[in-house]
Amino acid sequence: MPFLQNAWYVAAWTDELGTGSLMHRKLLNQDILFYRRADGSPVAMTARCPHRFAPLHYGSLVEGERVRCRYHGLEFGPDGRCVKNPNSDGPPPQIGTRTFPLVEHHQLIWIWMGNPDLANPAEAGQEYDYLGQPDRYAVCKGYLHLACNFGLALDNLMDAAHVNFLHDSTLGSEALTLAKTVLREEDGVIFAERFAPDGAPSALFGQLRGNCEEHVDHWADGRWQAPCRISLKVGVTAVGAPRSEGMEIRATHLLTPETETTTHYFWALARDFQLDNSMLTEQLGATTQAIFTNEDQWMLEGQQQMLNGESFWDAKPKFLAGDVATAAVRRRLDRLIRAEQG
Amino acid sequence: MPFLQNAWYVAAWTDELGTGSLMHRKLLNQDILFYRRADGSPVAMTARCPHRFAPLHYGSLVEGERVRCRYHGLEFGPDGRCVKNPNSDGPPPQIGTRTFPLVEHHQLIWIWMGNPDLANPAEAGQEYDYLGQPDRYAVCKGYLHLACNFGLALDNLMDAAHVNFLHDSTLGSEALTLAKTVLREEDGVIFAERFAPDGAPSALFGQLRGNCEEHVDHWADGRWQAPCRISLKVGVTAVGAPRSEGMEIRATHLLTPETETTTHYFWALARDFQLDNSMLTEQLGATTQAIFTNEDQWMLEGQQQMLNGESFWDAKPKFLAGDVATAAVRRRLDRLIRAEQG
Amino acid sequence: MPFLQNAWYVAAWTDELGTGSLMHRKLLNQDILFYRRADGSPVAMTARCPHRFAPLHYGSLVEGERVRCRYHGLEFGPDGRCVKNPNSDGPPPQIGTRTFPLVEHHQLIWIWMGNPDLANPAEAGQEYDYLGQPDRYAVCKGYLHLACNFGLALDNLMDAAHVNFLHDSTLGSEALTLAKTVLREEDGVIFAERFAPDGAPSALFGQLRGNCEEHVDHWADGRWQAPCRISLKVGVTAVGAPRSEGMEIRATHLLTPETETTTHYFWALARDFQLDNSMLTEQLGATTQAIFTNEDQWMLEGQQQMLNGESFWDAKPKFLAGDVATAAVRRRLDRLIRAEQG
Repeated sequence: MPFLQNAWYVAAWTDELGTGSLMHRKLLNQDILFYRRADGSPVAMTARCPHRFAPLHYGSLVEGERVRCRYHGLEFGPDGRCVKNPNSDGPPPQIGTRTFPLVEHHQLIWIWMGNPDLANPAEAGQEYDYLGQPDRYAVCKGYLHLACNFGLALDNLMDAAHVNFLHDSTLGSEALTLAKTVLREEDGVIFAERFAPDGAPSALFGQLRGNCEEHVDHWADGRWQAPCRISLKVGVTAVGAPRSEGMEIRATHLLTPETETTTHYFWALARDFQLDNSMLTEQLGATTQAIFTNEDQWMLEGQQQMLNGESFWDAKPKFLAGDVATAAVRRRLDRLIRAEQG
Repeated sequence: MPFLQNAWYVAAWTDELGTGSLMHRKLLNQDILFYRRADGSPVAMTARCPHRFAPLHYGSLVEGERVRCRYHGLEFGPDGRCVKNPNSDGPPPQIGTRTFPLVEHHQLIWIWMGNPDLANPAEAGQEYDYLGQPDRYAVCKGYLHLACNFGLALDNLMDAAHVNFLHDSTLGSEALTLAKTVLREEDGVIFAERFAPDGAPSALFGQLRGNCEEHVDHWADGRWQAPCRISLKVGVTAVGAPRSEGMEIRATHLLTPETETTTHYFWALARDFQLDNSMLTEQLGATTQAIFTNEDQWMLEGQQQMLNGESFWDAKPKFLAGDVATAAVRRRLDRLIRAEQG
Repeated sequence: MPFLQNAWYVAAWTDELGTGSLMHRKLLNQDILFYRRADGSPVAMTARCPHRFAPLHYGSLVEGERVRCRYHGLEFGPDGRCVKNPNSDGPPPQIGTRTFPLVEHHQLIWIWMGNPDLANPAEAGQEYDYLGQPDRYAVCKGYLHLACNFGLALDNLMDAAHVNFLHDSTLGSEALTLAKTVLREEDGVIFAERFAPDGAPSALFGQLRGNCEEHVDHWADGRWQAPCRISLKVGVTAVGAPRSEGMEIRATHLLTPETETTTHYFWALARDFQLDNSMLTEQLGATTQAIFTNEDQWMLEGQQQMLNGESFWDAKPKFLAGDVATAAVRRRLDRLIRAEQG
């Protein structure tokens, strides 16, 4: 299955890309070079030197603006054009490397790998503004490299049903698992919402409330936007009380295909309570990374192995009642990819 | 070359499959899950959950009968049908995973990977009854994972000629090597028999007799049954004496393709003498495993590397006079596979 | 891109092939066995036993002349014909393994992998006679296994432009880098010559002269012969003085494809000064191996990774003014290969 090209993907967390250094990451099976200009603005270009294919990330940054290839000293400006050939007295050669539109905000660097004329910066994940509002949200975040197709991770994240089983001792809530998923679609964005009134909280929220027994109203509202942007508001409040009186965690899950069988996974949790409790931030971060690594990643990579080279659709997945959100996302994404391929 | 599907293959030694646990093994390029029901009877099913491809062997056994998927908690009965979906109040979904006919006897678990209507349990290796008769035979056995196509191992096992060279210091007998192979075929079973009267015994039998010099009558009677069942009776007796007065070892070699380039190899030696000598059983077992590992496996995997991606037939093997049995087996197996493929 | 078949390639350094042992090396994606006959002359044959594909290099040498297969004891003479089958009383089977013309001189063993009728021993690298003249040249040499297509190494070696950048602290000379390349072709051999009068010497020659400041006349004369033979005379002399009064190093670079993405690289440096300074020979050897490993190999393998499975031409290399020699070599080699493929 080809990747959707005309879309914003997360390239990196803002703090992954320092000043004065070159960073390489493979995205959608393309080798990309990242760096920051002297003013801090990020630049992305094809990492393969157009001259003779040297990895530009083996090179260096000149005057904080240009990349110098380590092989022959050609220099490329932030627009990808060659601006200097030290091996010749003439003008620089009319060659260049492809650059990619980037948007950096809310701790994330977004990249557009498709037709640049179609790139609208206003569509680059502005819904994650809460990741950059430390006065309103305390955020912990992480990164995982997954040895599976991004689609399997997408399934996992849209899938409330697995939580009670795969994460039985951590995130599971039987009430939420059995709650009906209300699915709606608005402008291509799929919302999958679950509400479980008057039930036991999950172990996590029980702990946060300091009471695992007392019943609560529990919700989990998912949101997917093509191709790989998922957010989930999970919260509890006293039975019958308004949500604003309870506590809510906004879970952000952003996937970017590296290759057909490997995936970059960026995740974050933002909470609107106990903002100054940095110990809690640490704990939530470490616990989440451990759960994703030991439970989800293990399972996702196992699925990839079971596919044994077969594609997802050729393997004929069976969608059950609990999979309405997963199925809706898979089908919509497939339609988008087919439409793009023409 | 596709694998012969409608045939019994060895899946495991009986003692490899415990009670209460799930075992995964890839056979004929398919991931298979094994477990024992509460009554001890073995079950085999496709290890890939039909729902969304989770490895069922990551799951657990429920009430000694059902497999529960670790991902979403779906439960599958020993017939492969889904019997429970904990994420829904409705009836279990009409989905299932494929099961495979098994026969367990004489220390071996046999599996039928082809059309189940054609599976006849009476054909599942009943000729190896001597592996399960401790009052008549002392048995040692083992398992090797080979990084080669099963066909190369098959050649090796039908091939008396290599013994004197590859195993010169251990199993070799020049007399047997030079003996003419008498080949006959009965109901698709190929017999390859060699008899060397009045010659020196192999190092092994010389040692067992306590006399490496004295001449003996030596025999090696091979038997192949499609696709990968080989047994070999090797023995010595005093010159001119009946075989029943000598000593005989029944060597069993059972191969199951894992992938096109890897193979499961189950072997056993059963002897009809010194039954109570458990030290001898240990020694024979350790020696055999060492010979197979250091001499045969090394050679077989070297052949696979020399094929360098080419198929056996494309590489144009030259069959010599000593290869009559090997050639007969290869050709018959190829005919069976072509007939099955239609 | 297929390899050029009708050509001499370096198989090994003379001292890599001892007496009494078998050596295996993969060349042009073929497994080749090498050994020396009793008289010391080298023999090359397909390493795959024609009988049933055993690696002949697992075998042994018999009477210094014949290779005995470890699997079945077949023996092959230096002409590749089977001369003995110990498993049969009859004449040896009419089978054989392919042999290859070899030429050994000047410390190198050359092999012809194409049509043997076209092999002319007089064309096997006689221009490297200086490697075998210890009274006139002091030689250090080495071998690297490169994880890249041989073409990328070829580019590197014909390419004066990279020296000043990739090897800035070691071999670089700005004067030579900016010097114009004079290209000429004689009988299919491409010469690329650079001359930089009255400039600073490279760090290496400055050190050898004991003076890094004083200006010199500097030259670098490259020579390529299809498919993978490159030599380079690099030297300095006092400004205006004849070359014969200066010092010159003859660098030899010989590439042999192992597979499409791996390459054998044989290199040597021969100098015509300080012949008795064995410490200098050691130092030059160690330094060169370190430069090639840490700078060139690192870059070449990086380029291979950036190709990401694409072929060199499909990736559309841009040839600049400084690449005249590289481009000429690539194009001529491509013409030869296309002509050979017909």
